[in-house]
Amino acid sequence: MTLQSWVPVPAGSHFPVQNLPYGVFEPSGGGAARVGVAIGEHVLDLAAALGDEVFARPSLNAFMAQGRERWHEVRARVVELLTVEANRPEVEPALHRAADVRLLLPFEVADYVDFYSSEHHAANIGRMFRPDSEPLTPNWKHLPIGYHGRAGTVVVSGTPVVRPSGQRKPPQADAPSFGPSQRLDIEAEVGFVVGTGSELGTSVGVADFAEHVFGVCLVNDWSARDIQAWEYVPLGPFLGKSFATSVSPWVVPLEALEDARVAPPERAPEPLPYLRDGEQDWGLDLAMEVRLNGHLVSRPPFASMYWTPAQQLAHMTVNGASLRTGDFYASGTVSGPEPEQRGSLIELSWGGREPIELPGGGTRSFLEDGDEISISATAPGAEGTTIGFGEVVGRILPG
Amino acid sequence: MTLQSWVPVPAGSHFPVQNLPYGVFEPSGGGAARVGVAIGEHVLDLAAALGDEVFARPSLNAFMAQGRERWHEVRARVVELLTVEANRPEVEPALHRAADVRLLLPFEVADYVDFYSSEHHAANIGRMFRPDSEPLTPNWKHLPIGYHGRAGTVVVSGTPVVRPSGQRKPPQADAPSFGPSQRLDIEAEVGFVVGTGSELGTSVGVADFAEHVFGVCLVNDWSARDIQAWEYVPLGPFLGKSFATSVSPWVVPLEALEDARVAPPERAPEPLPYLRDGEQDWGLDLAMEVRLNGHLVSRPPFASMYWTPAQQLAHMTVNGASLRTGDFYASGTVSGPEPEQRGSLIELSWGGREPIELPGGGTRSFLEDGDEISISATAPGAEGTTIGFGEVVGRILPG
Repeated sequence: MTLQSWVPVPAGSHFPVQNLPYGVFEPSGGGAARVGVAIGEHVLDLAAALGDEVFARPSLNAFMAQGRERWHEVRARVVELLTVEANRPEVEPALHRAADVRLLLPFEVADYVDFYSSEHHAANIGRMFRPDSEPLTPNWKHLPIGYHGRAGTVVVSGTPVVRPSGQRKPPQADAPSFGPSQRLDIEAEVGFVVGTGSELGTSVGVADFAEHVFGVCLVNDWSARDIQAWEYVPLGPFLGKSFATSVSPWVVPLEALEDARVAPPERAPEPLPYLRDGEQDWGLDLAMEVRLNGHLVSRPPFASMYWTPAQQLAHMTVNGASLRTGDFYASGTVSGPEPEQRGSLIELSWGGREPIELPGGGTRSFLEDGDEISISATAPGAEGTTIGFGEVVGRILPG
Repeated sequence: MTLQSWVPVPAGSHFPVQNLPYGVFEPSGGGAARVGVAIGEHVLDLAAALGDEVFARPSLNAFMAQGRERWHEVRARVVELLTVEANRPEVEPALHRAADVRLLLPFEVADYVDFYSSEHHAANIGRMFRPDSEPLTPNWKHLPIGYHGRAGTVVVSGTPVVRPSGQRKPPQADAPSFGPSQRLDIEAEVGFVVGTGSELGTSVGVADFAEHVFGVCLVNDWSARDIQAWEYVPLGPFLGKSFATSVSPWVVPLEALEDARVAPPERAPEPLPYLRDGEQDWGLDLAMEVRLNGHLVSRPPFASMYWTPAQQLAHMTVNGASLRTGDFYASGTVSGPEPEQRGSLIELSWGGREPIELPGGGTRSFLEDGDEISISATAPGAEGTTIGFGEVVGRILPG
C-alpha cells in the first residue's frame, strides 16, 4: 500500500507525503518567517515540529548548508512525523492551513545563472534573432551555454512584475528610442538550488550533482524581447532580463525526484569527458504547463532538454569557479519539439506573426498590462504517485 | 596650509588624510576581522576609535547601508581624530602598522556587473574578435554595454589565481578541446561599490549617483581569452571570466574624489535623456598603472572612459532593477588612445602578434604560471594633494 499521511491529502494534490517540498512562510497569526514543508493543503512548521533552530530562519540557506546527509535525515524524520498516527497529537499544532500563510522567497540567492539548454528553444530563437545564420551557434552542442543573471531581482511567485522600460530599436529605425517594453515575454524554466558550496580553484563533476544540489523549483524568466534584441550583442542579455525573475515558493528536494529521472536525449557529437553522464543521468520527466489568464497555452516537456542540470553544474565549475550555498541556476526556456510545447510567447506566436488565440476572442503575441502567467509542473513520485511543484505566478503592472 | 595628520605620512603615500579609504582587516595580534581606515603606513581600527559596533564586523556592508549622511559624519569625525593633536593619546592605541595586518575582502558582494565603457578597448577588441564587422557594435554609443558577472568569485588582492581550464577551439580546429587556458589575460578596471539600495520597479537617475555609491576601488577582471572566444556567442562571457575577479582592499569614499572629477569625453550622438549628465559629470581623473612582474607595462587613463559610473548606474536600473547594499560594478577595461595605455595583454600584444618585451630579455603575450600582475592608481585629492588606491595584485598558479 502506498505510504500515506494522517494529514488529509486531496486527490490530485501536488503535495502528497512522497513530495515534502521546503519553503519559507509567515504564520497566519503573525510571527517571524520560518521554514515549512508542504503536505496536502497544509504547511508544517519545521521549527516547531523538530525543535531545531536552523528552521526558525527566514531562508533555507542555513539548513541547505548542512549537507546531503542531514537533508536525508530531516526528510526521513518528517515522513515519520506525518505518517505515524501516534505522532499526530504532538505534530498537529505545528500545522498551518496553506491558505492562511504567506509564502516568501525560500532561499537567499547567492549567484544566479541562466542556461539555454533546450535545443528546440535555442533553434527557434536563433531562427528569429539571427535569420541569416545557422539556428544553433557552433558551440551549442559542445557546451551548455549560460550566463549570469541578477540575483537581487529573483522574486517569489505572486510578486507583481512592473513592465520594464528601456532602449529598443526596430530594424527600420535610425536610432533607438526609450519607453516601456512592447514585447514583454515569459520563459518557462526549471531552477536548481545549490545547498553545499565548493572551493575556489576546484571543479564539481557530473557525478557530484546530488552532493551539491538541494532541490528544484519552477522559474519564470521574464524577458523584454525588444530591450534584449538591441542590447545583447556582444556581451549577452542584461536589462532585457534583470528586472525580475520569479520562482515558485516550494523547493522539491532531489530525493523526491528519484522516480522522475530519465535518460536525456542522445547527444551527438559526444561531449568532452567532463560533460559525459552515462550512469549519472539526471534527465527529469517534469510535465510543465503554462497558463495565460487561466488559459492553458503550452505544455513544455522538461525531459526533452539536451543538457541536464548535472552537466550544467559540471560546466559552471569546470574553470574552478566556486559554489556557495544559495547559488541558483535555471535550465533555460523549456520548449519541446511540438508548437504547443514552446515555453515562451515569442515562440508560441512566432515573433508576433501568429498570435495566440484566447478563449473569448482575444489574441496575444506578447504580454499586456494586467495579464497573469502561471507555470506549474508535475512529475512521477515514489510508489507510482504523482508529485508537483505548485506554481509560479506573476501579473504585469503598467510601467 | 594643507591639512595634515599627526600620524606620519611618508611623501608619495597613497593614504594622506585627504584620502581615508575604508577596508576590513584582521589585527596583527589576532582577533576578529573589523573595519579600518588607511592613514599613511597605518590602519585605524574604527570600532576601537569610534566605539561603534557597526565597524566591529567583517565587511563594510552594515556601515554602507547607513547612507550618505552617515558616511559624511564618520569621515568628518575620522579627520578630526587624525588631525587634532589633542586626540592622539586616545586614538593612537587604535592604530596598527599596515605591514602587520591582514587585509580581507572589504565588502560582501551582492550582484556584480561588468561594463565595457572604454571606446578604445571596445574598438580594439572588436577589431580582434570580429574582424569582419565594424569595431563598435551599433548599440555601443547609445548605451553602456554591461553584463552580470560571478559575485561569489570576487576575491581580495593577493589571492592566488589558479589558471582556469575549459573548452577552446582555434579557428582551424574541427572541434573544441579541453585544457588549461593558453590565453590568460588581465583587464585593468575601476570598481564602484553600492552603499544604499533601491526599490524594485524604480530607477536611479544619473544625478543620484552619490546617494547610492559609497566608494571606488581597483579591479583586475582576469580573462581567459580562448575560453571566452569559444563560449561567448550568443549569451556573453561566462567561464572565461567567472573563475576570479580581484579587487583592491581599500575602498576610496566618493567624498575623497571631488577634486578628481572631470568632464567625460564628448558623447556623439547625444545619449537618450536618462543617460545625460551635464552638471552631474562623474568623469574621474585616475592615473592607472599596470605592472607585470614589477615591470610597468601600461598607464591607462580613466578620464578617457566614454561612459561614466553615474551613467552606468542609471542604465543598470532604468528597467526597474533594484540595487542592494554591496552591489558592485566595474568600468570595463580601461584603455586610452595610445598603445602604451591599453589595459589588457590582448591589446598590448595585439592578440599575441606583438609580444611585450620584458627587461632582461623575456616577452609576454599572455600570462605564464608564476606571473604577478599589479594594478595601482592615483588621483587628485583635496588641497592639491595626490591620493591613491593602493594596488590590486594577483599571481598565477598552474591549473
